[in-house]
Amino acid sequence: MDAGREKVHSLNELATLLDGELRGDPHRMITGVAGVERVGAGEITFAEDKDRLQQALASAASAVVVPRSLSAHLPDEPGKPVLLVENARLAFARLLGLYQPVERPAPGVHPTAVIHRRALVGKNVSIGAYVVVEAGARIGDGVVLYPGVYIGTGSQVGNDSILYPHVVVRERCQIGARAIIHAGAVIGSDGFGFVTVNGKHEKIPHIGTVIIEDDVEIGANTTIDRGTTGPTRIGRGTKTDNLVQIGHNCDVGESCLLVAQVGLAGSTHLGHHVTLAGQVGVVGHLTIGDHCIVGGKSVVAGDLPPGSFVSGIPARPHTQEMRVKAATRKVPELLQKVRELERRLAELESRLSEAQREPQPVQPKAKAP
Amino acid sequence: MDAGREKVHSLNELATLLDGELRGDPHRMITGVAGVERVGAGEITFAEDKDRLQQALASAASAVVVPRSLSAHLPDEPGKPVLLVENARLAFARLLGLYQPVERPAPGVHPTAVIHRRALVGKNVSIGAYVVVEAGARIGDGVVLYPGVYIGTGSQVGNDSILYPHVVVRERCQIGARAIIHAGAVIGSDGFGFVTVNGKHEKIPHIGTVIIEDDVEIGANTTIDRGTTGPTRIGRGTKTDNLVQIGHNCDVGESCLLVAQVGLAGSTHLGHHVTLAGQVGVVGHLTIGDHCIVGGKSVVAGDLPPGSFVSGIPARPHTQEMRVKAATRKVPELLQKVRELERRLAELESRLSEAQREPQPVQPKAKAP
Amino acid sequence: MDAGREKVHSLNELATLLDGELRGDPHRMITGVAGVERVGAGEITFAEDKDRLQQALASAASAVVVPRSLSAHLPDEPGKPVLLVENARLAFARLLGLYQPVERPAPGVHPTAVIHRRALVGKNVSIGAYVVVEAGARIGDGVVLYPGVYIGTGSQVGNDSILYPHVVVRERCQIGARAIIHAGAVIGSDGFGFVTVNGKHEKIPHIGTVIIEDDVEIGANTTIDRGTTGPTRIGRGTKTDNLVQIGHNCDVGESCLLVAQVGLAGSTHLGHHVTLAGQVGVVGHLTIGDHCIVGGKSVVAGDLPPGSFVSGIPARPHTQEMRVKAATRKVPELLQKVRELERRLAELESRLSEAQREPQPVQPKAKAP
Repeated sequence: MDAGREKVHSLNELATLLDGELRGDPHRMITGVAGVERVGAGEITFAEDKDRLQQALASAASAVVVPRSLSAHLPDEPGKPVLLVENARLAFARLLGLYQPVERPAPGVHPTAVIHRRALVGKNVSIGAYVVVEAGARIGDGVVLYPGVYIGTGSQVGNDSILYPHVVVRERCQIGARAIIHAGAVIGSDGFGFVTVNGKHEKIPHIGTVIIEDDVEIGANTTIDRGTTGPTRIGRGTKTDNLVQIGHNCDVGESCLLVAQVGLAGSTHLGHHVTLAGQVGVVGHLTIGDHCIVGGKSVVAGDLPPGSFVSGIPARPHTQEMRVKAATRKVPELLQKVRELERRLAELESRLSEAQREPQPVQPKAKAP
Repeated sequence: MDAGREKVHSLNELATLLDGELRGDPHRMITGVAGVERVGAGEITFAEDKDRLQQALASAASAVVVPRSLSAHLPDEPGKPVLLVENARLAFARLLGLYQPVERPAPGVHPTAVIHRRALVGKNVSIGAYVVVEAGARIGDGVVLYPGVYIGTGSQVGNDSILYPHVVVRERCQIGARAIIHAGAVIGSDGFGFVTVNGKHEKIPHIGTVIIEDDVEIGANTTIDRGTTGPTRIGRGTKTDNLVQIGHNCDVGESCLLVAQVGLAGSTHLGHHVTLAGQVGVVGHLTIGDHCIVGGKSVVAGDLPPGSFVSGIPARPHTQEMRVKAATRKVPELLQKVRELERRLAELESRLSEAQREPQPVQPKAKAP
Repeated sequence: MDAGREKVHSLNELATLLDGELRGDPHRMITGVAGVERVGAGEITFAEDKDRLQQALASAASAVVVPRSLSAHLPDEPGKPVLLVENARLAFARLLGLYQPVERPAPGVHPTAVIHRRALVGKNVSIGAYVVVEAGARIGDGVVLYPGVYIGTGSQVGNDSILYPHVVVRERCQIGARAIIHAGAVIGSDGFGFVTVNGKHEKIPHIGTVIIEDDVEIGANTTIDRGTTGPTRIGRGTKTDNLVQIGHNCDVGESCLLVAQVGLAGSTHLGHHVTLAGQVGVVGHLTIGDHCIVGGKSVVAGDLPPGSFVSGIPARPHTQEMRVKAATRKVPELLQKVRELERRLAELESRLSEAQREPQPVQPKAKAP
């Protein structure tokens, strides 16, 4: 590894890389990238909005990436070079990639790695110390297996995927290309399924598998159970955060985001582009449509049509949930108000009864009871 | 391992194994088992209910397991062999076990396993690469320790238990017979206990242990803390799902089910046959009676008598909780209705007061205010 | 390891150690410590309150630690030696430390540890089997790395810290002195950050780091993500329980307690002495003041001033939340009561209208409609 290697690029190079319009010295050299709160001399930063723009121009940064939409807010003399781009966050992501310390382990197979003679290993891989690759497994080209990774019998890891230390991939699972699996994640543990006979839980063997498609990222210590028969599937481009649980036979669509500590019970289908915020739970055997968004800590207990935005326990349309939550906060006063209404109503009833019983003329009473 | 080995059994053999009544060709050979959605030719599937029965009979399956209770719904000519059994799900579980690829590692101790000379290892074990077994540990007969398992000083693993990769069993813990511990689980970490003196948290050393009884299954990346003094105990036949947290000195009864991401605070007692659905939290020092059921995402904040079915935050009887939840949804309209009642009441009050002030005869007003 | 070594101390020694006042035989030998429920002859126990005092004096214990505040409740003849101290829980913690089996691994570096030649390792360390320490890493004096620990490129572990089996510390992270990191914890995984372009999630590289200050304890299988740029920080003396998630760029103050399964989204600041109970979620980019307490399973969705005590989803002042929860339980009856009020009001309205339409004299009606 070469974590310490310094990288330097001219603003001209950066403008070309980011397809941006440079206003300022093209030969200025940039040595790094940082957020506006901590940027130093020699580094480049970015401004997402007007406020950040002032802050960035006043900072020690040697250049600022600015979205074209803010160009009207640029002073005539910004005081430092400015790089105008379409999407400043995307440009920032690319700069982070460019200036990222070279942390990829060098290619090669560590002598302590235990690779079964019936496993297939591609070209240009980095396989760290104490990795175990079982019989029949296939490791694609350019794959990085950090120390202590375990690849079970017959499992596959696609080209250019990175598995961080201690990732466990149990038998017969498939990981696609360019996947990133963070440390301690477990892929292919048995599903939680039992037949209860006379109060005793008999295990249902799980002979299915897990299929993780291309460009998926799986968070640290996340667990994904294998199917009973057939696969649990994570669609292309989906990203899960840390400590997420995905039950047996779930089918997660493409480009979903599952934030930390989300749990999916078994056999649930998520469409494409679904976002589940942190700590959400989804009941089993449901169908969640494309582009659904579920607010944090909610429980999804029924199917959701595409494009739903829900929250709550159980989840319902978010604006409705917000309305109910706001209203609920008023229940203590409501109870009091209803008691008061009851009192006034009783008084009214007795006044009217009295009036109807009494001879005329009807007259104001000296004092209300 | 022999994951790829094909297995074939005649229907006659299967009928004997499942103690079932075969209607159809006893010599037909069955090569596998699958759910009705994905069953292929040569395979057997099962029908839980009437709908599934139609689907199964129409599928490519070469035979169908049917509960005796559905036999009246069988057509005279079912079109394929049918195997009548008492409990179709149980039969399915057994078939899955029968057709499961042989995934148990071969017996033997991998040369890289570091086993302390003062550890005892039983017969017919499979101990994988990079396993560490510390001094005084005892590994029973037929135990499988997958690569990277750690067994601490003085800990015991009972006969025929299976510990998946990277399971950590800290010092002086006991695992019973036939236990299954999934990858990444941590048994015997320190309890979360501190004495706060002048705002500083001083650690309470945890010198207790963890006792996991026979036939327990522990999910992937689950954590079970050791007792302060005395054990944290998991009763015989209990199953936990993934990412479950069990605090120090908890005492979990027999045949409980703890679904994914459940958390038990310290010193809580669960009776036998308790079911905690996903993401439930249980406060410390409580007693939960036998056969209690707690709905998903609930918080149990008080003792529960045996047989309780509770849900909510905090949990109360489930039907009551459902009633409150349903009623709460109507609070926004209720607020409006009460405002309306208030208005009508005020009007009535003023009408009555006016009537009592006015001379008779009382007459309808032209327009309500 | 010497887990089995017996330890024996006289009451006189214990009194000196705990700075306590001994009433009874100073030469009595004590062989261990246990909670009052399981204490045996030869052992010492402690009494927190009056009830426990009776129980402790009646137990098999050979001596009892009693807070000075309970001395008035001691019988003239307590029947066994009593050790009066200021803080009985603290004394108990110290006794647990004293009688703790010697479980620290012996100093030395296991021959299977893979330590990069450009890593620096201090004096008197215990480095277990299959540990991996990458280039540029620095391991302080007296550090214990249990088997399978991974220390990434350029990371540092301060003096006397203990990392339990399979802890993963990714590249360029810093762990302070006397830290305890429990098994399976992951420090420095990538933050969960993406730029979504045309529905595709592009990864934001995370080139920041994690800084864990002195005297911090991190629970088993907890995950702490590295910053985008700049560090995620855990302040001195803070303790997290198991399965906690801390997002990128969070800044957690000193002496906080984060109970099991808590999740912090990115860029949130916690002050000092903050307590988050189990399963709490905190939204990103918030500021939580010093000494705040958040009740179990709550969601903090806004900044909190110092000293707040909040609970609920979303969290609000705890007493207010309790009031709303209690009131909400009455909503089903409230709905009924309001329906009844409506009925009575309608009746009253029609009675009054009738009365105003009818000629006088107003008389009671035979029967209400």
